[in-house]
Amino acid sequence: MRYADPVIPLVSLDARSAVPLYEQIYAGLRERIVRGTLRPGTRIASTRTFAAELGVSRFTVVAALDRLLAEGYLVARARSGTFVAGPLPEQMMRAPSVRRSAGGAPNARPPHLSARGRALSAVVITGPRQDGGPRPFHPRRPALDLFPTRLWARLIARQWRSTSVQDLDYGEPAGHLLLRQAIAEHVSVSRAVSCEPRQVIVTSGAQQAFDMLFRLLLDPGDRVWMEEPGYLDVRPALIGAGATLVPVPVDRDGIYVNAGIRRAPRARMAMVSPSHQYPTGATLTAPRRAALLEWARRAGAWIVEDDYDSYFRYRGRPIPALQRFDYDSAPGRGARVIYVGTFSKTMFPALRLGFCVVPDELVEAAANARAVASRNAPMTDQAALAAFILDGHYDRHLRRARVIYQERYEAMRAAFDKHLAGVVTLADASAGTHVVAWLDAGSRRGRAAGEVATISRAAGEDGMVVFPFSRYCLAPPRRDGFVLGYGGVSLKQIASGAERLARVIDRVSRARHS
Amino acid sequence: MRYADPVIPLVSLDARSAVPLYEQIYAGLRERIVRGTLRPGTRIASTRTFAAELGVSRFTVVAALDRLLAEGYLVARARSGTFVAGPLPEQMMRAPSVRRSAGGAPNARPPHLSARGRALSAVVITGPRQDGGPRPFHPRRPALDLFPTRLWARLIARQWRSTSVQDLDYGEPAGHLLLRQAIAEHVSVSRAVSCEPRQVIVTSGAQQAFDMLFRLLLDPGDRVWMEEPGYLDVRPALIGAGATLVPVPVDRDGIYVNAGIRRAPRARMAMVSPSHQYPTGATLTAPRRAALLEWARRAGAWIVEDDYDSYFRYRGRPIPALQRFDYDSAPGRGARVIYVGTFSKTMFPALRLGFCVVPDELVEAAANARAVASRNAPMTDQAALAAFILDGHYDRHLRRARVIYQERYEAMRAAFDKHLAGVVTLADASAGTHVVAWLDAGSRRGRAAGEVATISRAAGEDGMVVFPFSRYCLAPPRRDGFVLGYGGVSLKQIASGAERLARVIDRVSRARHS
Repeated sequence: MRYADPVIPLVSLDARSAVPLYEQIYAGLRERIVRGTLRPGTRIASTRTFAAELGVSRFTVVAALDRLLAEGYLVARARSGTFVAGPLPEQMMRAPSVRRSAGGAPNARPPHLSARGRALSAVVITGPRQDGGPRPFHPRRPALDLFPTRLWARLIARQWRSTSVQDLDYGEPAGHLLLRQAIAEHVSVSRAVSCEPRQVIVTSGAQQAFDMLFRLLLDPGDRVWMEEPGYLDVRPALIGAGATLVPVPVDRDGIYVNAGIRRAPRARMAMVSPSHQYPTGATLTAPRRAALLEWARRAGAWIVEDDYDSYFRYRGRPIPALQRFDYDSAPGRGARVIYVGTFSKTMFPALRLGFCVVPDELVEAAANARAVASRNAPMTDQAALAAFILDGHYDRHLRRARVIYQERYEAMRAAFDKHLAGVVTLADASAGTHVVAWLDAGSRRGRAAGEVATISRAAGEDGMVVFPFSRYCLAPPRRDGFVLGYGGVSLKQIASGAERLARVIDRVSRARHS
Repeated sequence: MRYADPVIPLVSLDARSAVPLYEQIYAGLRERIVRGTLRPGTRIASTRTFAAELGVSRFTVVAALDRLLAEGYLVARARSGTFVAGPLPEQMMRAPSVRRSAGGAPNARPPHLSARGRALSAVVITGPRQDGGPRPFHPRRPALDLFPTRLWARLIARQWRSTSVQDLDYGEPAGHLLLRQAIAEHVSVSRAVSCEPRQVIVTSGAQQAFDMLFRLLLDPGDRVWMEEPGYLDVRPALIGAGATLVPVPVDRDGIYVNAGIRRAPRARMAMVSPSHQYPTGATLTAPRRAALLEWARRAGAWIVEDDYDSYFRYRGRPIPALQRFDYDSAPGRGARVIYVGTFSKTMFPALRLGFCVVPDELVEAAANARAVASRNAPMTDQAALAAFILDGHYDRHLRRARVIYQERYEAMRAAFDKHLAGVVTLADASAGTHVVAWLDAGSRRGRAAGEVATISRAAGEDGMVVFPFSRYCLAPPRRDGFVLGYGGVSLKQIASGAERLARVIDRVSRARHS
């Protein structure tokens, strides 16, 4: 059998770091394997070549590869070399976005992609629709059962009745004027965002806003602070834009700004979720906010604020958007924060509408970049959404949803107390639609990580979505657990899901100890 | 007054070219100015510095700059230097995508963009909606007055009535299965595209398909053949992807493949519109098709086929898509052609749906790249469009539209014969919704170009859209004229538009000769 030429994976090493070099190589390779830029079956260059390329001792490389072999990320084949393993634990949990027909596609073979294309296509960001309806405990899924579909259908129909010929033409790339006004007013009032309608750019979901902003503001090689753990689905867009991801740890006060400054003082951007950190739920404290803004001003860096679910706070007072702190602390002196909002969580994902609020000097560039991406969002949906907001339906729906999410959160706690006490500990949550759940059994590092992956896979086979906490991390976390969404599932599903998860964990533990 | 530091614009020179160096510098600078990468007010470095940087004589640079000064692209200010002029003729014809509020935005100042961001935002690709309805002679606008809006509204309403909770969730990035099936069947039958549903990726308009394909298949610095003249609105997406545009001349047989091979044999991609070249209307001949495919196979290059309006052929037999020739000439041996279709011309632009048909080995990567861009297109619209196609409404609408376009084309010829004989000559058209119109008066090069720009501006002030032919070229064309759309305007508007255009041209000529 012939193998493809071996590759020398790119790993950037920091000799001044406290992290040993072999750990850096291990983490760098693991990240690339998990991310998919090193694909299953890729042959890794000999330790000699690899070490020479990195300028480190061969022993260092051997130590890193040994750990990856032990953890199942690599496999060694006698007389052939070392290969990236497949399927990986992480991949087991994500269905490919496109299924091949039974016999395989006729011409299927590795496509000839650009380097950027390989990065863009290496990570599947959204699994296909599950035809059985919402599954426990899929995070970042809203309560679709709660959405007033008939009311929405009426608004759409009304919109179509009043459509004129010119409404069928291309629209303003920055968005339908009425919707921009409605959004500006709403985020000003509810999130204290400092914002005029002209600063609102309507996008096809927050994903498009992120993708567009990364392309607009980052050049290949630019470093970007990523919350660690953090939001998964921006990674491929960042990697596609050529960015280098710099994980910055999150603690209970939110992103640890000083660590970011130490690791990448000249980063071009920080991706943050200050109001309700994803997935930990931490709120960025006032001193950290000040430090973050001060760094961004000094470094000339952009802060992209992902305000994905801040409407659903049910304990404590809502925290104004970071964008507002930026404006208040230096009005007129060059804003650094770009606020990104989505209607996927507050309305429904299939709508594909989101927006960003950009500083004045970015308005024109962002509108143009948005036009390059896909011109404008569908106009009827935009007009109907404007009516939904302006007629007060949106606020009514948000208020109802918040009550339901709190109810589901409490049901989640009760069910986990009942079925999973001493096995899984739910972190506190005061907002949103998901919660972090720590695995108590097997708290030692390697063991817990392996167990979490096995449980996640077994739960998936049982029809559940139970994502490992480590899935949200660029480096292996100190402690592993799960990120569990409760917002999108019924009280009944929450109760039965906890019971099923308990059975799955029990089965996995018994298999391990037998 | 203080000025910003002068810039030395990048111009790539080809010493072996038959085009004189000063012409190359002129064309390179002009392109950058028109494109907007050299913005109005930018100060150009001294001829001495500039010449040293390019490694040419100072006289060569002076000759190039003199011509740009004479044509109004540059302005000289005493004791300050040479600056990019503003507004440019080209810009006069495109409204900015975002209008500043009356007093100007409070913090407006040059934003800090990435190099890619500057490229992405430099070209405005879609003007804002004209609230007065369609204007003569806006090209690439369909007959919106013909679209069965009420039928469409009924299909949308029906879709909403049968919506289930899971329909509100994220959808398959590659598109709604039913729509992919409907598209595959339709393009197989009507355009002879060789295609299975799995190869169809539904996008938010053709623009998103182009943008996604460029990012997926091109790396910065890759060269791309562009038809000269060619489709304007892909340029910013190509430039944003870091591509180098290589203009390849088009004659009556379509793109001149041998010239492309001479200029950039190792290009990574060719952007072509073989069935009905935009804007000349040429059909790529069989020998040229064969040559293009042979080159692409040898070079490992991709061919992106923009099949924007081939349904609207009213003379001669429809020509199968180039994609089909590719498949037939080497079945199973690695397809090179990616077919891009749009519903903006066949349905209406505000729908924002398009698609591409990719070779099997690209399916997964394209679906992932599409997900990175904006996950999936809105699901209700996709389902309604599938029903529209499968129920036969789409074909009925296409048949009606073709008859109307032919009628409008004939009205266009009659009106121009009546009002503009001897002044403007319409080229022959056998398909589509636009036609090239050559300016007869002032056929000498520089003079015609100036006159065309003046007429275009004056027509714009008179409420018309009369784009210069040179707008579709990367280098100044030998002969200038206009690209006039008739598909989107009524018979009455065509007649009165021709009359108004005749008056405008008359006024401009008299002003010139008085």
